[in-house]
Amino acid sequence: MLHLTLPDGSPRELPDHATGYDLAASISEGLARNALAVTVNGEVRDLHRPLPDHAKVSILTWNDPAGKATYWHSSAHLMAEALEALYPGVKLAIGPAVENGFYYDVDLGEGRAISSTDFPEIEKKMVELAKAKSQYVRRAVPKAEAIAYFTDKQDPYKLELIDGLEDGQITFYTQGNFTDLCRGPHIPDTSTIKAAKLMNVAGAYWRGDEKNKQLTRLYGITFPKAKELTEYLERLEEAKRRDHRKLGKELKLFAFSERVGAGLPLWLPKGTALRERLEQFLRKAQVRAGYQPVVTPHIGAKELYVTSGHYEKYGADSFQPIRTPNPGEEFFLKPMNCPHHCEIYKTEPRSYRDLPVRLAEFGTVYRYEQSGELHGLTRVRGFTQDDAHIFCRPDQVKDEFKKVIDIVLYVLNALDFKDFTAQISLRDPENKTKYIGSDENWARAEAAIQEAAAEKGLTTTTELGEAAFYGPKLDFMVRDALGRRWQLGTVQVDYNLPIRFGLEYTAADNSKATPVMIHRAPFGSLERFVAVLIEHCAGNFPLWLTPEQFIVLPISDKFIDYAHEVKTQLEAADLRGTVDARDERIGRKIRDAEMAKTPYLLVVGEKEAEANAVGVRRHGEGDLGAMSVAEFIASVQSQVAAAS
Amino acid sequence: MLHLTLPDGSPRELPDHATGYDLAASISEGLARNALAVTVNGEVRDLHRPLPDHAKVSILTWNDPAGKATYWHSSAHLMAEALEALYPGVKLAIGPAVENGFYYDVDLGEGRAISSTDFPEIEKKMVELAKAKSQYVRRAVPKAEAIAYFTDKQDPYKLELIDGLEDGQITFYTQGNFTDLCRGPHIPDTSTIKAAKLMNVAGAYWRGDEKNKQLTRLYGITFPKAKELTEYLERLEEAKRRDHRKLGKELKLFAFSERVGAGLPLWLPKGTALRERLEQFLRKAQVRAGYQPVVTPHIGAKELYVTSGHYEKYGADSFQPIRTPNPGEEFFLKPMNCPHHCEIYKTEPRSYRDLPVRLAEFGTVYRYEQSGELHGLTRVRGFTQDDAHIFCRPDQVKDEFKKVIDIVLYVLNALDFKDFTAQISLRDPENKTKYIGSDENWARAEAAIQEAAAEKGLTTTTELGEAAFYGPKLDFMVRDALGRRWQLGTVQVDYNLPIRFGLEYTAADNSKATPVMIHRAPFGSLERFVAVLIEHCAGNFPLWLTPEQFIVLPISDKFIDYAHEVKTQLEAADLRGTVDARDERIGRKIRDAEMAKTPYLLVVGEKEAEANAVGVRRHGEGDLGAMSVAEFIASVQSQVAAAS
Repeated sequence: MLHLTLPDGSPRELPDHATGYDLAASISEGLARNALAVTVNGEVRDLHRPLPDHAKVSILTWNDPAGKATYWHSSAHLMAEALEALYPGVKLAIGPAVENGFYYDVDLGEGRAISSTDFPEIEKKMVELAKAKSQYVRRAVPKAEAIAYFTDKQDPYKLELIDGLEDGQITFYTQGNFTDLCRGPHIPDTSTIKAAKLMNVAGAYWRGDEKNKQLTRLYGITFPKAKELTEYLERLEEAKRRDHRKLGKELKLFAFSERVGAGLPLWLPKGTALRERLEQFLRKAQVRAGYQPVVTPHIGAKELYVTSGHYEKYGADSFQPIRTPNPGEEFFLKPMNCPHHCEIYKTEPRSYRDLPVRLAEFGTVYRYEQSGELHGLTRVRGFTQDDAHIFCRPDQVKDEFKKVIDIVLYVLNALDFKDFTAQISLRDPENKTKYIGSDENWARAEAAIQEAAAEKGLTTTTELGEAAFYGPKLDFMVRDALGRRWQLGTVQVDYNLPIRFGLEYTAADNSKATPVMIHRAPFGSLERFVAVLIEHCAGNFPLWLTPEQFIVLPISDKFIDYAHEVKTQLEAADLRGTVDARDERIGRKIRDAEMAKTPYLLVVGEKEAEANAVGVRRHGEGDLGAMSVAEFIASVQSQVAAAS
Repeated sequence: MLHLTLPDGSPRELPDHATGYDLAASISEGLARNALAVTVNGEVRDLHRPLPDHAKVSILTWNDPAGKATYWHSSAHLMAEALEALYPGVKLAIGPAVENGFYYDVDLGEGRAISSTDFPEIEKKMVELAKAKSQYVRRAVPKAEAIAYFTDKQDPYKLELIDGLEDGQITFYTQGNFTDLCRGPHIPDTSTIKAAKLMNVAGAYWRGDEKNKQLTRLYGITFPKAKELTEYLERLEEAKRRDHRKLGKELKLFAFSERVGAGLPLWLPKGTALRERLEQFLRKAQVRAGYQPVVTPHIGAKELYVTSGHYEKYGADSFQPIRTPNPGEEFFLKPMNCPHHCEIYKTEPRSYRDLPVRLAEFGTVYRYEQSGELHGLTRVRGFTQDDAHIFCRPDQVKDEFKKVIDIVLYVLNALDFKDFTAQISLRDPENKTKYIGSDENWARAEAAIQEAAAEKGLTTTTELGEAAFYGPKLDFMVRDALGRRWQLGTVQVDYNLPIRFGLEYTAADNSKATPVMIHRAPFGSLERFVAVLIEHCAGNFPLWLTPEQFIVLPISDKFIDYAHEVKTQLEAADLRGTVDARDERIGRKIRDAEMAKTPYLLVVGEKEAEANAVGVRRHGEGDLGAMSVAEFIASVQSQVAAAS
């Protein structure tokens, strides 16, 4: 008998030579039907391979990331089969699964090319081949035989790959008429591939080296249900519509300029209004929670980073030091705010009664990223952290964590992120020497984080060995309206910097003690947060946050004065907005305001002017009819009050 | 007859060989009595030298800076005479007037020293010698005679000085028993020197070269009235008490750290509160005035500064460029915000109807200063400008200037600066080729500034040739509570950057036109402004601005809860403050709160707790008696409303 352990820790016994499929079938008929592969002691394997004894096993389906990856890898083989059928003599290089689907790099041969107009034919062929329910058959092949096979096929790429492999470790996978050199694993057969879509065609150098031949890279994706493909494509379209780079431009939130430099955002007036309101919102919450705002410079002397330990980590891939007329003097653009805050902590003697000291700063930091890695506001070279550092006693860590979680939840809730999880990263208990700080403090801090998260009712995952060398941490991952996951806020315990900076406080017994430092940033960075927020709400920002809540649209020149009167009344009630006094037709004004995603369009003409009223259109909802200015104010105010 | 022109342009005729004194006497008897020297075509001369024909002349008294300088230079000779009397054999190097008084570098000889305990004796001797009413007598001396004289006196310093002079250009001045090698000019005689004070003794290398011998530098100051000396010393004491570096530390507003770097202020929580409130105050006024806040990075690519023209001005005395892993790529710490704002202007097409566009940013900029030039917050290496750039049509310049003046006056008034003047800097009409921009635009802008200033009722001075090459400007100078003048806000027209950046707008006739740019900063920089403000109000900030308006002082532990209740009530009414819950006596708490210059000290005990009242002490005024919490709130609110 085989003695297996299921993911929940329960034991299961199966006859010798039982496979992953047998295991799935022993659990449920449905699982057997949906099973794509199996993990054996963490390694993904074909479902139909016999299982070893005493293994930890887990059945993978479409719902597991590793299940999807296997499915897409097998789909790459299916695409290759289709290509061989449609483009005889095509040479194949490599074809892995990627985050969304798979690709295959192919050499079509002199004078042949594939463009998106060819995609439907390939897709059709793939679905047709899949219907044959061809099994993916694994076979160990001696090196000589492998070489003979691909010599026969005249495929120089596979031959070069085989050249790098050891005899005895080479496997082929075959489905239908197609055989590939492949380590696997694969799904049982092609029948689960019901929908195929080629997404893109691009050039790619063999082995990523631009000295080599350029191959054709074909990206594709497949699904077990046609409906899933449709939904995926819709989601993709929606993601394009919501792309924060596109909306940022359309809504005039931010811009980039080559002269200022790639990755260095210019915040335009509307984006600045948004950003400042976010700052103000968090600043208020922080002041209520006992934080003290501070302001520090954007550069620091070399000595600061020698002390913090960052200096020795600066390398050729960073912004280089700023020299001065004074030989030997060097400054650095600050890559984080903590060293500066440590220096503020040191400006006066601290007693145990003064702690926690919570220093907060919307601190702009600079980190060099390769230009290829820059992406809108999510990967930039300068960004503003909603940073704070809490200096506390070890016995205060749990309480401080709970308060930080409160702020993070307050922020996520106000910005309508309902779906999030928290990852707790602890140290590797097998390898304690990697970490600094006493066992007692680690035990206390790790327990504090876990208890704080539990008491606050967070959904958490726990990762052993993922803590930084200087302390455990808690990261928040949100899922946006399209189901994409983003890492935002972070809370991190630090035993290292307080020691390096020689921070201390006078304990109750008059001895000198070292405070614990907690780094935390609920947004993470304003840039990244705004990017995620734009995509999450498709540019329809919450009413309390949006740069312009209303726009008054006079139906003709005659009502411009009344429009300004309305604006003045609304501004007196702390509403924000403008008047569209352009010499345009009302239809055009409405269309432009809808494009700008202004929440309320207030159309005013004779009737409204007489009644001190406005004709209200809500963006995305349409005409709400006329209401008095007072009613409109009350409505907006109550919505804003409810949300923030 | 001599034909002379007085400062007001009026002509005056005097007999040949008439002196400055004769001129003064011809004007009034009082002027003759107070005359110290005379300027002849801009050059200061002895009062008793004959005047040349056809000269522009002006009598100098104690009230003229050049009169004071001459007086103090003559006082240096008087001190030298005293030193020769008291320290026989003393060798004299140089003895000029300085901003406040004068010094003389002297070589006392081996084994002799002067300390502050010796000052009274020297001062006494000076006043005694002054009473002799010795005339300062000028005499041209052949070089050989000059050498003989100082060889006789064994004074190597004077001999070295003579060595560098041409024969025929050497003059001696003698008063009483003392003769000095000196170009002059000097006051008529010693009788006007009524009060003398030695201020300081320091080491100074001969000719400023540390390879030379170290001499003793004696600083002194003299006055025509004993009362003026007393007042001067009092003002000096008061200035020390108000020194923003001292108060900044005592009030915990800001700090410097060697590790972070000299000249890079760390804003502590209280300073940050002050600074943020100042920003908020100005931001609100600016938004009301149609400014749009923007945010830009603290660095810019080389290309940005090549375009702006700053690149070619970067030199060895600046912060050096920031290189990156990308060869040839260079960034600079931004020394000003205008290039970034030009790039924002360019992010969309602008029409004449869209102008003015007013982009505002509290932008932190970095400029390298030699460490010896750094001084508290007034000379720093990183500072935040309350910057804005107005892009407007040429016909809008005057209106925009008036609006900017409104904001500056609003700021100065709110911060209690009552005494200020404005300097208008125009171009040199004799040398128009130095300037860029058309004659027509210069004429229009210069007229616009002058008219705007006149219409706003500013007290102005006008300086020809003081404009920047790119446009005329208006600078505000304030006089603080100690009568010291500071340059703060500035408004500047710029015809240059719009051209360099290729800025444009579509004019009414559909042609492309170049906007005019106005730079303006009412505070100048937050750092400098806060420094001046601290010294102006001696740390007693206006109630609306001060970081903490009140502190509640429970007379014992029993009333801590009530103290917090009071604080909560006050905070609900938007007042700011804290509770002093320390285990200290009430006397100590009061003393500490007075030291911290907290405006209101609210003492609470049993009586107050029963009546929901507070015992109010006003900083600097003392006990105001008990009042209900509601009364106290109303009082503070009405003061704040009146002030801001």
